[in-house]
Order: sequence, then C-alpha cells, then structure tokens
Amino acid sequence: MIKIVDKPSSEELQQLLNRPFSSDTAVFDIVKDIIDRVKAKGDIAVREITKNTDSIDLATFKVTDSEIEEAKLQISSELKAAIDVAKANIERFHAAQKFDDITVETSKGVTCCQKSKPISRVGLYIPGGTAPLFSTVLMLALPANIAGCKEVIICTPPSKSGKVAPEILYCADICGVKNIYKIGGATAIAAMAYGTESIKPVYKIFGPGNRYVTAAKQLVMAHTASIDIPAGPSEVMVVCDDSASPRYVAADLLSQAEHGSDSQSIAVVTSTALAVAINAEVKQMLAVLPRAEYMRQSLANSSIVVVDSIEDIIDVINDYAPEHLIIAMDNGDAVADMVENAGSVFIGHYTPESAGDYCSGTNHTLPTGGWGKSMSGVNLDSFCKKITYQKITKEGILNLAPTIIAMAEGEGLEAHSLAAKVRTE
Amino acid sequence: MIKIVDKPSSEELQQLLNRPFSSDTAVFDIVKDIIDRVKAKGDIAVREITKNTDSIDLATFKVTDSEIEEAKLQISSELKAAIDVAKANIERFHAAQKFDDITVETSKGVTCCQKSKPISRVGLYIPGGTAPLFSTVLMLALPANIAGCKEVIICTPPSKSGKVAPEILYCADICGVKNIYKIGGATAIAAMAYGTESIKPVYKIFGPGNRYVTAAKQLVMAHTASIDIPAGPSEVMVVCDDSASPRYVAADLLSQAEHGSDSQSIAVVTSTALAVAINAEVKQMLAVLPRAEYMRQSLANSSIVVVDSIEDIIDVINDYAPEHLIIAMDNGDAVADMVENAGSVFIGHYTPESAGDYCSGTNHTLPTGGWGKSMSGVNLDSFCKKITYQKITKEGILNLAPTIIAMAEGEGLEAHSLAAKVRTE
Repeated sequence: MIKIVDKPSSEELQQLLNRPFSSDTAVFDIVKDIIDRVKAKGDIAVREITKNTDSIDLATFKVTDSEIEEAKLQISSELKAAIDVAKANIERFHAAQKFDDITVETSKGVTCCQKSKPISRVGLYIPGGTAPLFSTVLMLALPANIAGCKEVIICTPPSKSGKVAPEILYCADICGVKNIYKIGGATAIAAMAYGTESIKPVYKIFGPGNRYVTAAKQLVMAHTASIDIPAGPSEVMVVCDDSASPRYVAADLLSQAEHGSDSQSIAVVTSTALAVAINAEVKQMLAVLPRAEYMRQSLANSSIVVVDSIEDIIDVINDYAPEHLIIAMDNGDAVADMVENAGSVFIGHYTPESAGDYCSGTNHTLPTGGWGKSMSGVNLDSFCKKITYQKITKEGILNLAPTIIAMAEGEGLEAHSLAAKVRTE
Repeated sequence: MIKIVDKPSSEELQQLLNRPFSSDTAVFDIVKDIIDRVKAKGDIAVREITKNTDSIDLATFKVTDSEIEEAKLQISSELKAAIDVAKANIERFHAAQKFDDITVETSKGVTCCQKSKPISRVGLYIPGGTAPLFSTVLMLALPANIAGCKEVIICTPPSKSGKVAPEILYCADICGVKNIYKIGGATAIAAMAYGTESIKPVYKIFGPGNRYVTAAKQLVMAHTASIDIPAGPSEVMVVCDDSASPRYVAADLLSQAEHGSDSQSIAVVTSTALAVAINAEVKQMLAVLPRAEYMRQSLANSSIVVVDSIEDIIDVINDYAPEHLIIAMDNGDAVADMVENAGSVFIGHYTPESAGDYCSGTNHTLPTGGWGKSMSGVNLDSFCKKITYQKITKEGILNLAPTIIAMAEGEGLEAHSLAAKVRTE
C-alpha cells in the first residue's frame, strides 16, 4: 500500500523525501488580483468575490450574536467536554511560555532590558471546506488571549447557505473572540491585511489554508502584515526501531494521509520485516476507513524507508525537518535529544500525532515543507514581539563615550559620534 | 532646518509620519533576474554579476587567511579596544537571553516540553559602500555564536580593487567567522539562499542592505530561506518634555539623518519653544558636520511635531512604531512603560541612539517601516527555533483518548481517531 524502499542511495532518498507541493505562479497571479481588488474596493470587492467563489451573496460578513447562540445549542455535551479538556491543556502549556523580562547591567551605568509585548491586533484564518477545523480556533485564539492581544478577529469561509460551522463559532465564543467574519481564502487574507470598511487591518495573520491562502499570506507579508509561517501540506515522519507497533505506526501514517491528497507520510525503519508488517496494517485499515480514496492519493507521495541504523534515522530526520516527528521507540528520549530540525516531536509508543493535533497542549500550527530548519511552530511568542530598552546614567555615558566615538568615527558617522560627545561636555 | 508642525490634525500627522520608502516593482524585476541567474549558473553567474555591478572580476570569492591577517594589522589599538568593549557588552546582553526549557505535565501522564535549538546554518549580509558597517558584524555574529549556530557565513561586497574593509574582516575574525565571501547585494542573498559551487545554502539570512538586498530577501523568503526582518531605511523618534536638552536632541536627530537620504528623524515635543530651540541647534551642528548635504535630504523627510500632552506623545509612538525611540525626559521610565510598538527604546537624557548602535549591548538590527508593530529586532531567539515535544504514558493516552476521539470525529477525521483508539485496545 505504501512503497517500501530498502537502503536507498542518498539520491534516491532525496527523491523520496521531496515534498509533493510546488508553488505555482498562476496561483500568485490570481491571488494578486484578489488582493488588488480588495485594497481598491474594500467591502464591495469582498462581497463580489465571495459571491463568485463561495456561491453566496452576503450583504454583511460579521457573524451575529444570534448565530453564535444558535451554534452553541448544536454542540453535543460530549464534544463540549472534549473541547474543555483540550482548552485547559493548551492554556496550561502556552501560559507556561510567558516571558520574564531580562535586565542586565552590561557596563557600569548602562542597563539593558528585553521585554515581551503583545501584538495588539491579530487576525486568525480558519479554513472551512470539507472538515470544520475548529481545533485551530483553540490553537490560535487561546495563545492570543494569554499573550494579551487586544483585538483578535477570525475570518472563515461561509457555506453556500451563508453559515459557519457551529463548532467553529462555539470555540471562538469560549475563547472570547467577538469579531468573526464570513470571508474565505485569499479574500480574507487581503481584508485582514489591508482592512475594509467593516474590518480593521491587523498587524499579523495566523492560520492554515490552501495554496491560495498561503500565497496571499506570502504576498501581504512583503508589504503590510506579518504572518505566522508559510503553511504547506501537512506531513509526518514516523521513525521506528524494532520496539515499534506496526498497528500504531500504520494508524499514524494514515491519520496524516487523510489531511489532503498532497499530504506526506514517511516511515523510517531499521528492518524490512517491520516495513512489511506496517504495510499489512495499512492495508487492513484502509479497507474500513472512510476517505480511503483520498488517502490513496497522499500515500502515493509516501514511503517506508529502510535504513541501517539509528544514526541514519537521525540524519534523515534532520535533513527532512518533519512538521510532525513520531519516535516509536522504547528509548525515544535519546533520539529526541539528537533532533535538530522538526516542528513537534511525539515520543514513545503511546503518543500519537492526533494527541498534539487536538489536546496534549502543544500547538498544532507547525512549520511544513522543511521550514522547521529555521522556524518555530506557533507558540506564545508568535503573538508577541520583544522590545529592548537601555538606560544610561551620566557616569555610564562618560564611560561608554570613547567606545561610541571610536566606532562611529571608524564607520565614518560623525553625527553618531557627536551624539555621544555632547553628552560628555 | 527641520519643519516644525504645531498641533497637526490627525490627517496632517499621518502625512508627516509617512515613511519616505516605497517598494518598487522595477527593483523586484531586477532582483528576480539576478536570483534566477544565480540559481541556474551558480558561481559563474556570481562572477559575471560582480564584474558588472562591483567593477571587479574575481576568480574566487572567499576571503583568504592572509587577507585577514593583513586586515588585523591595519586596525588601530584604539579601535580594537572600542570593539572589545562593544563585544563584551553585546555578549553579556545576548547571553542573558538564553532560553530555559519549559516542561509541563498538562494532564496526568501527558508531558509537554518546549526547547530552543540553534539554526544550524546562517548567512550574514554586511553592506559595504561608503561606510564599512563593521558594527553589524558584531551584532549578528555574536548572537549566532551564543545560540550555537554550527555554520556562520558572511557575504559583503568587494571594493573596486577586490578588497573588503579591514574593520569588517577584523570583527569577523574576533567573532570566529571563517567563511567570508566577497559578494554583494541581491547576488549575495541569492547565493546564500540557493547555494553555489563555493557556498553552501543557509537556512536563514540576516542583515541590512539597500532596496535590492531587501527585495532579494523578500523574494527568497517565500521559497527557501527565512530572513530576520525586512530592512528599510533607518528612523528615529525622539519624544521630549521640557526637561529635554535641545542640543542632545538635535545631535540624535542628525545622527539618524546621516544614515542615508531616505532616513527619517521625528521629534515630538510638548512646547513650540523647545521645537525652535532644537532647530537652532540642528542649524549650528549642520554647519560643522561632514555629510551635511546628505543630511539635508533626509531632514526633508523629517519633522518636529508639537502636541498637547504626554498622552498624545504615547499615541504618536504607538501609531508610528519607531525603529529607535529616544525618551528625552526626566521620568522616561513612565513613558517607556506605555510603549506598545517600537524596536529599541533609549530612556533618559544620557542614552543616545548611537550607544545602542554600537555598544550598550542591545542589538541594532531593528524593525523599520512600522514592522515594530508585529516584529522583534534581532535577538538571541532570531538564531534559534523552538521545538515542542510531548510524551504520553499508557495511562495518559487512556485518559486523553476520549477527547482525541470526540474532536477528531467532530472534524470528520476518522484516521486521527483511530490512532488514539488502537493505543487503548
């Protein structure tokens, strides 16, 4: 069901680990046009584009209080209880990330300080489509609250009947988000970045989305609004020694595969027998799961790679920088310590990726496409920026002035030097 | 010398605070062509472009050991001593920013952890041109070392005789950077992002530069390498009450103005008399400073704004999000506490911006153009990424499985649910 590749050469391995995603200039052209229209015509453009793409003509985009009240009645008490558990765990882990001010007297009379301040206006994009991804509301709105962001808005596409999934509204409500707009795709990103008559522009945009959403985020980030991370198709790497359960590993590979046809699931194992056993479980599970047709497409991008040793496994991990890394080993901690590049790591046999997707407490908005080599997943810091401060006493500037003057004159910047000199007169 | 604007309306104020910088599609077209050539032809393209833009034909780009030894002999002992002071202060402040691992048991048997890991390969761009900005070498290479980045490379443009300023080589040497390449502008950014025969690609690119460099950074960040911040023209805002010294303020405004013709210096004061006094000092200083012609251009983008109150001052600060904010007040701390958006803050009468530019210990690579609303200046975190980890026990997954299953099924993701179920069998 998934191709097994035994001891690939490094070229073959590169080929297997290629991400199926490619950026498409046609997508950028379409998105650029949408952004230009929203910038120029505001709400009128949003309405026009929504009519075309979502097949619904909305005179206003904001979700009303009565829609929220109605949504709350539609959520089962079982799901409410689950969301409560997830919310509590996510809050605990993100609250623990609060930054303590740093103050250092770097030389006599020279005090430097670093403080974290919330980004005052943030916009969260929640995709609609086949599955209402309400868990993403928790993953983004809860840290925004903990950070202290003053204004938090959500955009999410309306259904053809002009509704938003009740689960999304329920989660937004328990996170205290009051301003929810029925706007989808690149249009939503443009509206949040540039503002319209009904939406104030935000300073940073968060959230996953299809390639149009990602392209729109990449275009606005060059001009006006920051973004969390460039979201690409989701991916998992499961690394195993002989202690791994083929059944658990198969379920993990499939749970990634059901995200979309361009998802990628990679297992890296040290024995061919385990590879074969995993595949047998995949076959069995596929026979009974819904979305199997969907999964078959993404499994075509996937592979089970057999390598020689744990050292090889570590090289593959750090070269691939998986969004999700599951270490299906009895001594997973030792391997986890060697991980340099990954989004989030799941250690041991009882830690499925789906735990992190929903409720262990870690964030599920993670760097895909190898960006884990240089970027963090969303965390409390993503909703803050750090400002530095310095305060120098009269004695401090007398001490430091010769250094400032020598360096400024070395760089040919006389006025920089003068700003120190006048203070020592 | 600088226009004084008394109690502007909010529209007038917006106009005054407009940044002189505009992004130019012509620049992006030129840069895109450079990037495509470097991607396609590697070192050959770098050599060709360097010949055209820097008027020097270099067969190899790497600075040799003997060039570094030669450079060290050219630095005065006075400048060496100043650089030592700066290095020590920058190291102290950035070392204090080290991140301690966070571990939280979010529910029974569910342990979540956040750790910081260095970005293994980083590239630093150091502009050449009229002034050799060797201080930027310290500001980027020292935190890269403290973070533990394994490979740190520098690109900097060669002079027409194929040399690099000795100050830059000296600073690189004392920071332990061995790989320095004579490549400038967008070509350098392309080479670091995509690699050539002689340069390994890096995962993140740092450093200031002109609009070609910034455009190149923005283009590569959509595809392959992260960047620190989108660098624009430098700017300062000096906010004053009547305790401010017109002479100090004038020197601060001019030290910003000498950076380049598109720099911006804004003073915000609560009395017209102070505005007039500042301008008188500016006039006097301009008469004796070099680069005065240069400064006159940037002072045309500048203004002294008179407002009614400290509250107005705080609104102006947070709306503008200055790269550098000097609070020239006896009680500067109180105003500093109200700052929401800024790059770096200089508190009190004895804290010139030039202290932070060189040697107080804070970083001088800061968000310009209003990006301070959502971005931090360069700091230790800029050279790291945070990875999350979770480890769940058998008991933990038994507790958490119902939550995972309810949420996964709510999102229509059956395989996600299955990955929890199989672990409870």
